[in-house]
This record gives sequence, C-alpha cells and structure tokens, in this order.
Amino acid sequence: MLGAKGKVGATIVEGVEAADDLTFTAGVDAGDALSLFTDTDTQVVVDFTHPSVVMDNLKFLIENGIHAVVGTTGFTDERIAQVRQWLSAKPDAAVLIAPNFAIGAVLSMQFAKQAARFFESVEVVELHHPHKADAPSGTAARTARLIAEARKGLPLSPDATSTGIDGARGADVDGVRVHSVRLAGLVAHQEVLFGTQGETLTIRHDSIDRTSFVPGVLLAVRHVAERPGLTVGIEPLLDL
Amino acid sequence: MLGAKGKVGATIVEGVEAADDLTFTAGVDAGDALSLFTDTDTQVVVDFTHPSVVMDNLKFLIENGIHAVVGTTGFTDERIAQVRQWLSAKPDAAVLIAPNFAIGAVLSMQFAKQAARFFESVEVVELHHPHKADAPSGTAARTARLIAEARKGLPLSPDATSTGIDGARGADVDGVRVHSVRLAGLVAHQEVLFGTQGETLTIRHDSIDRTSFVPGVLLAVRHVAERPGLTVGIEPLLDL
Amino acid sequence: MLGAKGKVGATIVEGVEAADDLTFTAGVDAGDALSLFTDTDTQVVVDFTHPSVVMDNLKFLIENGIHAVVGTTGFTDERIAQVRQWLSAKPDAAVLIAPNFAIGAVLSMQFAKQAARFFESVEVVELHHPHKADAPSGTAARTARLIAEARKGLPLSPDATSTGIDGARGADVDGVRVHSVRLAGLVAHQEVLFGTQGETLTIRHDSIDRTSFVPGVLLAVRHVAERPGLTVGIEPLLDL
Amino acid sequence: MLGAKGKVGATIVEGVEAADDLTFTAGVDAGDALSLFTDTDTQVVVDFTHPSVVMDNLKFLIENGIHAVVGTTGFTDERIAQVRQWLSAKPDAAVLIAPNFAIGAVLSMQFAKQAARFFESVEVVELHHPHKADAPSGTAARTARLIAEARKGLPLSPDATSTGIDGARGADVDGVRVHSVRLAGLVAHQEVLFGTQGETLTIRHDSIDRTSFVPGVLLAVRHVAERPGLTVGIEPLLDL
Repeated sequence: MLGAKGKVGATIVEGVEAADDLTFTAGVDAGDALSLFTDTDTQVVVDFTHPSVVMDNLKFLIENGIHAVVGTTGFTDERIAQVRQWLSAKPDAAVLIAPNFAIGAVLSMQFAKQAARFFESVEVVELHHPHKADAPSGTAARTARLIAEARKGLPLSPDATSTGIDGARGADVDGVRVHSVRLAGLVAHQEVLFGTQGETLTIRHDSIDRTSFVPGVLLAVRHVAERPGLTVGIEPLLDL
Repeated sequence: MLGAKGKVGATIVEGVEAADDLTFTAGVDAGDALSLFTDTDTQVVVDFTHPSVVMDNLKFLIENGIHAVVGTTGFTDERIAQVRQWLSAKPDAAVLIAPNFAIGAVLSMQFAKQAARFFESVEVVELHHPHKADAPSGTAARTARLIAEARKGLPLSPDATSTGIDGARGADVDGVRVHSVRLAGLVAHQEVLFGTQGETLTIRHDSIDRTSFVPGVLLAVRHVAERPGLTVGIEPLLDL
Repeated sequence: MLGAKGKVGATIVEGVEAADDLTFTAGVDAGDALSLFTDTDTQVVVDFTHPSVVMDNLKFLIENGIHAVVGTTGFTDERIAQVRQWLSAKPDAAVLIAPNFAIGAVLSMQFAKQAARFFESVEVVELHHPHKADAPSGTAARTARLIAEARKGLPLSPDATSTGIDGARGADVDGVRVHSVRLAGLVAHQEVLFGTQGETLTIRHDSIDRTSFVPGVLLAVRHVAERPGLTVGIEPLLDL
Repeated sequence: MLGAKGKVGATIVEGVEAADDLTFTAGVDAGDALSLFTDTDTQVVVDFTHPSVVMDNLKFLIENGIHAVVGTTGFTDERIAQVRQWLSAKPDAAVLIAPNFAIGAVLSMQFAKQAARFFESVEVVELHHPHKADAPSGTAARTARLIAEARKGLPLSPDATSTGIDGARGADVDGVRVHSVRLAGLVAHQEVLFGTQGETLTIRHDSIDRTSFVPGVLLAVRHVAERPGLTVGIEPLLDL
C-alpha cells in the first residue's frame, strides 16, 4: 500500500487483511523507501497518495514489473500518455487508474447509459448531506451527461410544464433534468428514473460510509494482472 | 348520488354498490328532479356536480334534512357562510365539503405537518406524468406551506450549496425546497423527506389511478351524520 | 396485427398509429384471411393470438417473407425447432418471439444478472395487487434464478439470523431470498437489492398499467428485419 | 450526564455542547460522586448507565429535585411503580424514561398507528445489516402489533395467494405480514406500506448511524421540566 497511513490507505489495508485470498506485504508512506515493495516481492501496489508523488511511484513500479491500482487524482492527458509510454517498455506490467472505485456507483452509471435509449423520459435525483458545496453533485452531472450522449438523436424527455416556480424542474444538464436534495441524516445517494408508457425503471445507489471504495479496490487488485498495459476505470473489470 | 352520470359519479356509485354496509338509493344528473332523494328516503347524498348547481343542491338537501358529502369545487368564503346559515336553521343536518378525498394524500399532509418541527431538514419531491402544466404541483406547494407554517420560529433547513447549476436545489416555497420530476409512466406521487442527525423519515404517497378518492368518499358517507353542521375536509374524520 | 380485436392487439394498433415512423396496414382476427397481409404488402406482423393458431400464422408469414413479432405464449422446444426449420428455408425472414415485451422488466433482469457477482448480498422484493395467486411472482422467481446462476461459485449472501418468526426471511429461491408483498393500490413492482461494504444498489421496476408492453413491441417491429432467423426475447435488441 | 464515559454518554455530551440553548454542567461515571450534580446546580441529568445502578441514581435525583431523562433499560412494572412513589413525594420533579429516543422511529410508529384503520392493506418491510440475529426486528414486530391493535374489528389485509414457496409472504405478526431483508451495506431501515383503491402510503425510516438518538435526548432535556411526574416514551413530547 502506498499512502498506507492515510485514512483511505488504512481502510484498504484492513480490507486486504480481511480477504482470504490476498496477503498484505508492505505499507509505504511519505519518507519510506519504495524498495520495500521489491524487497517483499509485492505483486500489486495500491496507490492512494498525492498528485505530486504518484508519477514517481508509477515509474518505479512499472520499471520493477509491479502492477499498480491507482486511486490518486490529477491524471491529465499528458500524465496518462507518460504512463502509457513507460508501460510500452514493460509489456507485462499492468496499471489501473480509476476515479471511482465504488462498484455500486460505477454500475449505476453503466446501467443508466445502457437504459438511456429505451425510455421516453429520464431524470436524475441526487440526495446528499447538507454540507455539500456543489449542486448537482459531480457524479450526478456526469451521469446526466452520459445519458444525454447515449440519447443523442432522440427527442428530449416530454415536459408540458407551462407555469410554476423557478427551479422546480431542476437543473438542465445537456437536456437532462437533475434535482439536488440536501438533507441532514443523508450521506450520498442517487436515483436515475426512466419512464415510458405504463412503466418506470429506477436505478438507485446509496453510499452510507466512506469505505464503499474498498470492494472495488480489492476487485482491481485481484484482476489487474490479467490486463497488461493501462486500464482506466474499473468498468472493464465488470464485464458489462 | 348527484352527478351520477359523470365519470367520478359513476365510480362512486360502483363503490357504494360494492360496500356491504351501504345501499345505493338514487342517482340524479342534469335534468332529473331532486325529489328523487326524498322519495327514496335517502340519508346521505354525494355531490360531484358543478359550481353552478351545487348551491341549489345543498339548499334542497339541508331543507330536507338529508346529509351531504360534497366534492364539487368553487367554495368561496361567501358560499361557505351561506351553507352555514342554512345549516343553522336545521341543527341535525350535516354537510361535509372536501377539496381532496384521497385518504393517503390527506394523511401524508397531516403527518408532514406533525413531523415538521422535529427535524433539522425537510424537502419535498413530487413526481408526475409529463402532461402536467404546473410545477410544483398544487399539493406539493400546499404541503410545503403547511410545513413552513409548522416550523415558524425554527431555523431553515441547513444548506451549504455555494456553486452549482440554476434550479438544482429546486423551487423555494416559503423556505422549503420542492423538486418536481416529470416522467412518462408515472401518475401522481409525492415524497416528503425529513432528516436529522443519523436518521431520515420519508412519507411517500403514490396515487396510480383516478379512483383513489372512493374510499375517502365512502368514509365520509358513513360518518357525516355524526357531525351535524359543516365540516371542511376529511381530516376531522381521521381522528388524528 | 394478428389478434387485432383482442385488448392487447387493439392497444398495439393504437401504438403503431401514434408512431410517426410506422404505418398500420391491416388487422386480422379470427375468421379473417391471412392474405390481407400479402395484399397490403405488410412488412412486419405482430402476433398476439393463441397457442392454437400461432403456428399456422407463422408458417404463412415465413413462407411469404413477412417478418413476425410474436407475444403469443406456448412455445415449447418442439415449436421453436419447427420455426427454425421453416426459417432455414427462407434466409431473409425474421421472427422474434418474446415472453415479455416490457423494456423496464427486461432491463431490470439484465442489470440484476450483470450486478450479481459484484456484491456480497442480494435479495428480491416483489410487490403486487392482492388478487395475485402465486407468491413469489414468476418474474421474481426467474430473476432470483438468474442471479443465483450468475453467482455460482460465490458464497451465499451473509445472514446471521438465529431467532425469529417463520417466513420473516422470505422464500429461498436457489439461495436467493425473495419477499412478496401484496397490497391494495399496487399493480406490479419489483426491487432487486444489492449490498456490499458501505453501499447498496437497488434496481426497481414499476409497471402500473397493462400497456407497458407497447414500447417493446414497437422496438421489435422497428428492428426485427435487421435480425434474419429466429430471435428469442427482446434482449438482443437492447445491445447490452 | 450519568454514564458520561460510555460511547452513548460521550455522544450525548457532544450534542449538548453543540446546542446553543443548553449548557453542559457535569459528567459522572462509575466511581464518581452524584453530588457533582447538586454542586453544579444541574437542572436536568441524562442517565444512560446500567440497570444495576439506575434506580439509585433516580432516587438521588428525585430527592434533590433534579429532572431526569433516562435511556437505561430494565424498567419492570415494579421499578416504574417505585419511581412513581418517589415522585409523589416531590411534586415538581420530572422523570422521563424512554426505550427509544430516535424521533424518526417514534414518529413512524405513531403515524403507522394513526393510518392503520384507513387502508384495506398494510405490510411491514424491515431491512437491516446481515449481522442481526433476530428476524423480524423488535421494532418491526412492535410496529405490526400496534397496527394490528388499531385495526381490531376490521378485516385482515386481502390476500389471494394460493400457490407459492414457503416464506414468500413473510412472517405473520398478529395478522400483519412482516418481511425481513438482510443486506450488507445497510444499517437499520423500515417501511410500513398501506394501500387502498388506487393509492398507497409509505412511511419509511432510515437510521444510518448510532447517533440518531441524540436529537430525541436533547428534545427530552429541553421539555422534561414541563411535565412533572413520570413520562414514559418521548411520544407525549411530540404533541401528536
């Protein structure tokens, strides 16, 4: 584990230790030597560190043929290109970089994309704790954009609203309405609602604590070696 | 039944006929004589007619000591005062006038009022078919206003939103956020969400066909005689 | 339309007439000649008739190179084999036979299958009107079986229940718990609940009237010609 | 605070300190002297201790005219009678003992009781984490019993089930069906579903962390002095 003393890192180490089929080898944090991984014959390293150090980490791991699962943010197109170049010299090495490891969140976005073309209507309702600064949430906005893209060429959701109060119909994200509820007692929740004649389909994701990324990280650790080269997002592991 | 050939009237007649403890006596529509009710010793008449005839109907019913359950609209303060005056001369006669007979809708509004003071946060989400012209719905706006009134003196629901897209946070109705979803495949639905530290309470009402007023009308028919004078709304019958 | 005077047939004809990109050519019911379809140069025929006549219908349609979309039930393995044989002689003809045309129902089953492997826990809750004779519903039992198959080799959902009342934990369908709610005011609804550390994913399908098969039938009419030979189910049209 | 070093006690102290209108005076735990409360002129003491010490605590508090809010369990009829006797000698002292301080849970039970008579059908679905030993949950069983009592004399919910799999229709608690879902990623959730012709009403309570008792405890602290003598449950404070 890289970033082993961070909150996220510590939670992942716990998850690895609780898994029967995985062995925790070494935790490295600021100031520790990366050679700890080669010394312990580590096969996969998880990196939840910082944009300022993640590239050095990846260079070391790829050069040493250690697979990497990366949740650190800040991957620009240039950085992605650099990682690919390093990997091209090491055809067996595998790197998976993902912005979101929560399997439920990733699947609900995928299902929303798949369903988008087959319903007359679609709207998104996201519900979060009241300390959140942005509305709609980044995930909801991204979900709406994926849906809009999948519906390209189709008519917008029908809407006969002619009178009302500003804001009632939510935010317009590429033609998809998104509603943001802020409520004490909630954490992070999202519903995508699809409707057509006589039926509706709802895909709801509830995330109630900060450890929901763990199963996705473990899934990546188990399967990253099967995908040499660079993989972006955990979607390809889900065989959809 | 007054307005017996209308869609609503016919549905109520069916409901009365299906009820073991009630007997259908007579149906009257435009052109028929009101004396049909006195001839058949009718005890309770249900009126779903038109604002242009309902006052004449009520005058006749009260004078003849027949109880009335009224779903016809258009009752101004003047009309209400007139009905009260007629009733004062007939102390045994009972009239119940209600804008909404759907028990689920009425109860959900009552519960929302009762719960309003005990939670930090409250928002309303209403969901309807896409042919609806107004957003938010009249019921949602009224629910929000009742909640706002019950919370008078309490702080508004907390909300740290500082960036976002217009409309994401819904319409502001007296300080209560209301979100309107429009979706093919829906009829009329409403959720009131309450939240406080670690818990949420949701009151959801789903109305999926136009006959949901029937149980409330039958309830009123059964109990109107117990309440001589004028009763407005079915709430008093619900013993809340 | 074959079975044009039936309730289902009439609803489909309405749907075709309301669609800008489709033209209704002819409706045939018991006693009418199938030649009406060849006379009108019909390209696709929808068959919602009866097991006793559907095979004769299909023989005629395939021989005349007319594509068929079939919702009639009773397709045994023998019948399927017979249809395939007829089709082998007419390589351009296309037949699509589906047990369920409700897109929401089909998608929710597909999504349940896709998600099944990635969560520790899964249960099914189906909710129907109280006149239903079977519990669980056929759809819920089939969904549970598909999920169980997709999870083959994985541990069962964790469950520490040691005391309780019989039936509380629902029916066991191949190791997946299924709960059946029966409630006045409902039509046909189903939730598949998936859970893992810190998050849950819920796929909910609500069908509130009997016309929810129409969009799926129209989808099949539009695309059946692209798939010569036999297609079973609308899933292949959904490009999942 | 009595039991100030316990997990619950510490959480309540935090809640008191965060409240503008309350002042924390003293925390007492095993080994500390109760006189700390009289020394600090404490007006209200919250007791989350143990059945083995709570009676001594209450005796002291009542004798000294300090109001008490008690979440400690183990109150038999004899203990309640004893508390009442002590209180009769101190007419100004007020004690509130409650088995559940989660306002959402208490309100949802109250609303379920109120709605019970007005719907043809009612069922309860409770959903919990998979480590729970009992099914149904104590709260769900109690809710079902309250509903059954409120419906005394009314027919059972209609149910035409004639074929099926054992357990599908849930547990029978006094004639009310209760379904128990166990799912990783959940904490404690409950839905009471009511249905009648064309409409349903759902009361849902979600409790996602162990601190959901805090607002109810603070409510009791604020209002206990207004109710001299013994109050059982927080319901009377909710003015329903």
